[in-house]
Formats: sequence, structure tokens, C-alpha cells
Amino acid sequence: MTDDTNASTLDRRDVLQMLALGGAALALPGSAFAGKAPDLGAIRAAITAQHEANVRRLQDWIRVPGIAAENHDMPKACQFTQDLLTDAGFQQVTRIETRGHPGIFATLDAGAKRTLGLYFMYDVKQVDPREWSSPPFEAALVDKPGFGKVIVGRGAVNQKGPEATFLAALHAIRAAGRKLPVNLVLVAEGEEEIGSPHFGDVVHRPEVMDALRRCDGVFMPFAAQSPDGDVEIALGSKGIIELELVSSGAHSGRGPAKDVHSSLKAALDSPAWRLVQALHTLVTPDGNDPAIDGWFDEVQPLSAHEKDLIATSTARSSEATRMKSLGVQHWVHDVSYREAMERLAGQPTINIEGLVGGYIGQGGKTILPGRAVAKIDCRLVPNQTAQASAAKLRAHLDKRGFTDIEVNVTGGYDPTTTEEHSRLIEVSQAIYRRHSIEPGLNPRLGGSWPGYIFTGAPLKMAGGHFGLGHGSGAHAPDEYYVIESANPKVAGFDDAAMSYVEFLYELGAR
Amino acid sequence: MTDDTNASTLDRRDVLQMLALGGAALALPGSAFAGKAPDLGAIRAAITAQHEANVRRLQDWIRVPGIAAENHDMPKACQFTQDLLTDAGFQQVTRIETRGHPGIFATLDAGAKRTLGLYFMYDVKQVDPREWSSPPFEAALVDKPGFGKVIVGRGAVNQKGPEATFLAALHAIRAAGRKLPVNLVLVAEGEEEIGSPHFGDVVHRPEVMDALRRCDGVFMPFAAQSPDGDVEIALGSKGIIELELVSSGAHSGRGPAKDVHSSLKAALDSPAWRLVQALHTLVTPDGNDPAIDGWFDEVQPLSAHEKDLIATSTARSSEATRMKSLGVQHWVHDVSYREAMERLAGQPTINIEGLVGGYIGQGGKTILPGRAVAKIDCRLVPNQTAQASAAKLRAHLDKRGFTDIEVNVTGGYDPTTTEEHSRLIEVSQAIYRRHSIEPGLNPRLGGSWPGYIFTGAPLKMAGGHFGLGHGSGAHAPDEYYVIESANPKVAGFDDAAMSYVEFLYELGAR
Repeated sequence: MTDDTNASTLDRRDVLQMLALGGAALALPGSAFAGKAPDLGAIRAAITAQHEANVRRLQDWIRVPGIAAENHDMPKACQFTQDLLTDAGFQQVTRIETRGHPGIFATLDAGAKRTLGLYFMYDVKQVDPREWSSPPFEAALVDKPGFGKVIVGRGAVNQKGPEATFLAALHAIRAAGRKLPVNLVLVAEGEEEIGSPHFGDVVHRPEVMDALRRCDGVFMPFAAQSPDGDVEIALGSKGIIELELVSSGAHSGRGPAKDVHSSLKAALDSPAWRLVQALHTLVTPDGNDPAIDGWFDEVQPLSAHEKDLIATSTARSSEATRMKSLGVQHWVHDVSYREAMERLAGQPTINIEGLVGGYIGQGGKTILPGRAVAKIDCRLVPNQTAQASAAKLRAHLDKRGFTDIEVNVTGGYDPTTTEEHSRLIEVSQAIYRRHSIEPGLNPRLGGSWPGYIFTGAPLKMAGGHFGLGHGSGAHAPDEYYVIESANPKVAGFDDAAMSYVEFLYELGAR
Repeated sequence: MTDDTNASTLDRRDVLQMLALGGAALALPGSAFAGKAPDLGAIRAAITAQHEANVRRLQDWIRVPGIAAENHDMPKACQFTQDLLTDAGFQQVTRIETRGHPGIFATLDAGAKRTLGLYFMYDVKQVDPREWSSPPFEAALVDKPGFGKVIVGRGAVNQKGPEATFLAALHAIRAAGRKLPVNLVLVAEGEEEIGSPHFGDVVHRPEVMDALRRCDGVFMPFAAQSPDGDVEIALGSKGIIELELVSSGAHSGRGPAKDVHSSLKAALDSPAWRLVQALHTLVTPDGNDPAIDGWFDEVQPLSAHEKDLIATSTARSSEATRMKSLGVQHWVHDVSYREAMERLAGQPTINIEGLVGGYIGQGGKTILPGRAVAKIDCRLVPNQTAQASAAKLRAHLDKRGFTDIEVNVTGGYDPTTTEEHSRLIEVSQAIYRRHSIEPGLNPRLGGSWPGYIFTGAPLKMAGGHFGLGHGSGAHAPDEYYVIESANPKVAGFDDAAMSYVEFLYELGAR
């Protein structure tokens, strides 16, 4: 993925593409994007007929931002999304209050045998409009060399574009006079970009749980294709806890309560040095692996089959290209490419996202800071849990006398694991193959998404992402989503909509 | 000093007041500010007559900022200062080019027996005008409750106010028809606020060195009085090196060259963790003292006399007030107040001024930063030197394999030490006592100023600060300098000017 080099601006959603093990899937030659089942021609025709209305719907959605982190236009964005669902045929669309921004619960009963779960988000990441070549909330249609006509805007690919494409599939089925081949249960949240802190408030409502239990898995509409058209299916993702370690004189009573002149270090404790010494204990001396007491106790090693999947992926992809895209010359511990990718899937991490304390501008300033913070994320693998991991970190620090270091957990959730032979994954594979794409299988993303809420207890369903199409720049400037593709191997909006139609019919037929 | 609580915004100059051991000097009752020698009445009268012109001169100077760090108006500020010196009677005023901003060398030959050296600076610290209640370069005259009429502006006290007050003394002596009782040799720099990196280029010119060698010490005009009127004389200051420790994938070839998605920590080295592990080795496990190889080899312990001076100061001042002003509840290592103040004078330090790496905004961002930086200052005591200390730090890191950590020294100089029984200090004491102030003696400031260039080899002269008057807020918003004092124990502009007149006559008479 070309986005690897831009990863500073990426996050959970983009990671699904970015951390594909090198875009390893093999795109077979030939085959056009068109429904293969004989009865889908009319639906395809409806998608074509509705193209302009579908694109306008997406543009209108992008123009109602909904930025959870800034509490910007959230009620409006929620209502707009509810209206979109109603328009697409959901018979029941309910706003679910949470301790944060509201979620949405919607159902479409088609009287079908099977029911599909859907996971939507209606919030988007913050923007700095100065960094954009086209205003982020104008949703301009732009010619992007090598890609075709794309829509540029915040949320274009993450996640309004794919979601709007899915809704276009529903509009087309109805316009073709067909009954939906499956029932739908949809849950949406408005806090995906801030770590889904209250998504449980939505999903764990009894009526929502009851509805979800009837589903053959849950997916989020997703532009799964790389710029080359390849697709990789993730069978899981790491869990995460995000937290701040805070060392401050105000809290500890040692060292200054605010910044003082640096010469006073001779007479005072330094919260910044205190933080360094606490951090030092959390990792191995080389800084590469967690050294928190008991951190590996529940860690389940990769299975032989999972290692085989990784070996297959790495064998197909170029280590040199991957290293170059990341700007690295060595894998950690100088391991092989395959071992590095095994670590990406199987090794828990503790990472410093940011260090901030005292003077952070150009040059120096002679102060002794009263406060220093390390922003940390820990990636978790089965059978670690977010809650137990946070408790272990606290206990580790306490045992070493760092009771004064605050551990402020800001979010987190458990790892996600989906059964390879679930109907969700098998239907996904079938549709991709129908489009001559042999999808790679990634046992576990190095990144995280809140799929645990579906795949973990008590629901224990399959959860993942599905959809043809391509876009990129999630969390970055000039986020885009391909509307008319210049590459025959990459689906534009209409072909992507058709992939959802095919998924629904395939699931309905099984 | 009330400024202790505001120390985050203070630096070298302010430290001379701020780090006084508690404002310990005893102000004796009685005595007005007036020349005692019978022949100074006419000069005093001239100062009074010229008051408005003197204040206007200072205002005009403040309105020509000269911000070295921003390369703002530097040639103009240099020329303005040269013109001020010419107007005040210096017969020779020369701009001295350096590798940075120019310095000034000026001389006034009065045919006197003794010669006084003067150290001026013409640059000022940066400002954020939004933080000021009066625009920083308007130099407004404002009534400050409890203080009287003050001038508010950047450079008001640091250092244009005291310097302009000294020049007013020269104007008055001339206006009174008197010949100056001493010759003057003045060196000025325009880079004091950026660590005096090229001051040696000015002072070490042969003609400047020759001139300085004729001097009975060098002082910088200084508003030495606390808000209560107390004065403390510093007999030295710590040296300093300021540097950045930089850990980056781009430099080391390990870890990413730029920020990448945090999940990649599983497969990549982390420059931030690398920095933490390198920092960890630099201090004792409690973070309180330097642990750099050989750091203490040249450290000269405080003498019994120096400890006595500190004991005298601490006995006179309130530990509780001091702690409160600093926002602390404990001294480092839980030592006594006296021991803490001994450390301030005698203990070398390594301090983290700032930590900055990766994401430093609100909340978190799931990145693995490609670069992390620790901004460090080390305070040095005799007989440490800036150059040897930087080399020891480098060697320490190299020995432990941290050859990849960059050590970027941005500035620094050696400690300053002035003989207590030098003519400079004795004349200073005599003038303060004439104004019923018994000045405290501080063996060594915890902070730093570039006096080493005078007190160190090859010049080895006395160097310090002198002057009545009060101001504060150096490097902070609303910097001020008292023009008309509401407190009879604190000198206003005219009384402060008179203190310089008295100093010149006292030195000339010795």
C-alpha cells in the first residue's frame, strides 16, 4: 500500500488496508465486474441508473461532518445517518443514547431465512483544512491520475463512501422490484474515531443483542482493494489499550507543581526523570518488548496454520518494497521478514505514541517541568484482555514504587478473532473469487478495531469487513474514494455496490 | 521573589534575582536615596532635570525590539544601541562582526586612574503579544499597585531598563559639568537570549582583550532589588550546557524514518523507547543525580566559607515561603533547606527541559514515532567545563552502545566565579550599605550567565551585576521596570541612576 509512508496520519480504519501483509493477494486476469447470477442484471441496471443520485447522497453525507473528538455537528450527523437508513428501506431506525454520542440500531425484515449484521460509523476524524487540496467537507469530484474520478473529503473512504455504496445496493434492489434476499440488523456508532468508548451501550441493549444473535456475522462496508485491486481478508485483529502515563509534582507531591527554572533541579525532584525511570521498567533493556509483570501469561502463540497463512503472504510479497514503504532498514531484533510478520500478528506490544513534557518548541528553554506524559498504546493478542492488561500495568508500576505515576486509560478493547470457516468469511471469499480476486488471508491484523464486541462473549459471532472498491487517506489530508475507476482491476462505485448485492444474494442462498 | 511561581517563563537574566537564597538581605531602616558625597548633588539634580528625557530614551529603545531568536530587527537594534552609547559620551563605538549577530565594543577615556568594564546586551526574548496586558513594544507607563509607576515592555528589566539607567548616570555627570571619575570599556552582545554563542568572537578580539585587561572588573547594570528592597550579590554562577538528545530512525537506520502506524511496533524498533533507555543511564535510579561516567571528577566541593554564607542566608529566610512559591512539598532526597540550598550552589545537575516525540496533542494517536527528542540542560560547577562535560556525555552513551543517539549541543559555557574581596564586589557592597541595605552574599547562583568570559582564563577578572532598582517578568508577559517607586525601600529610575553615579565615584576614589 502506498499509504504506508503516510502512516503518521492513519488510524484504526486505515490499518485494515495498510497492514495487509504486503498486498499479497494475487489478482487473476480477465473477468469484468458484473453480476454473474442471471437475475442480478436488473439490479445492476438500477445501480447504473441511480449513479448520480448515489454519488450525490454520499456528497451530502460528507457535508455533514460529525467529528466526535470535537463534538462537532454530532446530533445532525446522527439524524442524517438515521434518515439515510430509513430512505434505504430499514423499517425501524432507532437512536440509542449512550454516555457519549448516540448510536443507531436499525432493522430491515425481508422475511428472509438469513440475517446479516452490519456495523456502521457516522463520525469522522478531525481535519486541518489547510493541508487539503480540496476543502474536506465539500466532497469534490476530482480526477486523480492513475485512479480515475474520485471523491475527496473527510469520510470519503473512512467510512461514509463504502457505507453509502452499501446503501446504494439496497436502493438498487428495491428499484429493480426485488425483495431483499436477507434480513438486515444494523448497529452504528458515532465514536469510532475516539476509540468506541460507549459502543457497548449500543450493542448490549437487550433488543439489539437479540437481533444480532439472529445474524450470520457482522461486517462493515469496506473499500478492501489495494491500488492494484488486491484484497486481503483479516481473520482477526489485535486488541488495544490506549493510556497516558503522567508524572507530575502536583499529583505526587515531589518536584514542582508547575514548571520552574531548570537550575532548581539541584534542589528538587524532576517529574520528567521520574517518568523516564518508570518507563524504563516497562520494556526489555533494548526497548523492544513488553517487560510488564505477567504480560505474556495469557498470550496464545500463533498456530501452525496461522504461521502457514503468514508464510504464504510473505512469500508472495516483496520485503524490500515493504521496508522501503515504511522507511526502515531492519526488522526488530533483525528477524526475517516472515518472523517480523508473525510478530505483527502474534506479539503483544507496548508502544510510545508520544512523549510530551516541559518545553517542546524550537531550541531549548531552561525549565524544570512540573509534568511529563508518555502516551502509550499496548496491542493485545488472544487471550489478553484490555481490562486485565491495564490492571497488570498498574500493578507492575506499584510493585516498583511508582505509585505516583498516574495511569490514565483513555480507551481500549479486546482482540477480535473470526473463524476462518464462518459463513461471513466464506461468502466474502466467494464474491471476491467471482471477481477473479484470490483474497489473501491474514490471521490477525497488527492494528485494532472494535470487532471484539461481536466476536467476543457473549455474542461470539463472526465479524469483519467486506467490499470491493478502493480509497485511501483515512485520517490524512485529501482522503479519497474511487467513484469511476481508471484501473480495470479496481472497482468504482457501481461495481463496489454490485459486490454488496452479490454478497447479500450469496448469503441468502446458502 | 514573587517570580518564583512564574519561573516557567524565566531564564538566565531573571535567575539572578530569582535564585537569590530567599531574598535574605536585611534592609536597615532610615536613609533616603541621595548621593552622600558632597559633590554629587549637582549630578543628582541633573538626573532629576533629565528624568523625562531618560525615560523617553528607554521607551524608544524598547520600541526597537532586537529579537535574536527570530532574527527580528537585529541590525536596527545594534545601530540604535551604538547611537545610545555615542550619545552617552563613549568616544569610540565599534560594531564587531561575529559568526552570528554583531557585538559592540565601546570605550570612554576620561583620563582617570581606574577603568570599569561594562557588559551590555541589546537583544530581548521573544514575546506572545496576546499574553500581555499592554503591547510589549509600546513601552507604556503604567501604575502598578504596590510598586508605583512602571514601564511595561519586553526588555524593560532584561536588560534595557537598567542599561538605560546606567546611561542616564553618564548623561547626568556630563550635564553637571563633571568629568567621569573612571574610564569605561563596554562590550555588548546581541545574542544573550540565545545562549551567547558568539560572545567570544567579540571579547577575544585583541583590542577588546587589551581594553578589558585594564578594567577593575566588569558588571552588567542590573535592577538588583527584590520587591522589598533587598539585594543579594552573587559571587559566581553555575556553567551550563544545553543540548538535545535525538533518537531517530532516519539517523540510526533502526526503526522507522518517519511516523508509522503504532501496530508496527511489533515488527520495528522504536526510536522513542531507545531514547528512554539511553536517558535512563544518565541519572541515578531515583532520577535525581547525574550518573554520567566521570561527571564528578572535577567537581570542587563547596568550601566551609561558602557553606557558611549559605547557612547565613537560609537562616534568614523562610523555608515554608520558599517551598510555597516553588509549589513543592519536599526538597530532593528530603534534605534540609540548608542542604537544598547547598546543592543549588554546589551540585551539578542534568535536567530534562522538555520531552517531545510523536503525537503531543490532546488524547492519543496510534503512531510509532520515527523520532524523539529530550531537551537537556546540565548545570556545571567549578572545575567542570562545558566542553569536557559534553565530551563525557558523548563517551558515556558510546560506551553503552548508544552511538545512534545524537547529542546536539546548542550552547553552553563554563561556571563563573568572582573573588569576594575583589574591588568590584567591595565597591558594590559599599554602595548598597550607603543606602542602608546589607547585601546578602550568594557563593554561587544555581543559574548561569556568560560571566565566565570575563572571570575565566585568560582574562580572570571580577564579573558581576550591580544596580539599585526593581523590575521583573523577564521572559514573561508584562515585563516591567520601576520608574517611580511607591516603596521607599525600592529605588525608582532616578535613584537607580544615582547608584551608578555613586559606584563610579567610589571606584574612582579607591
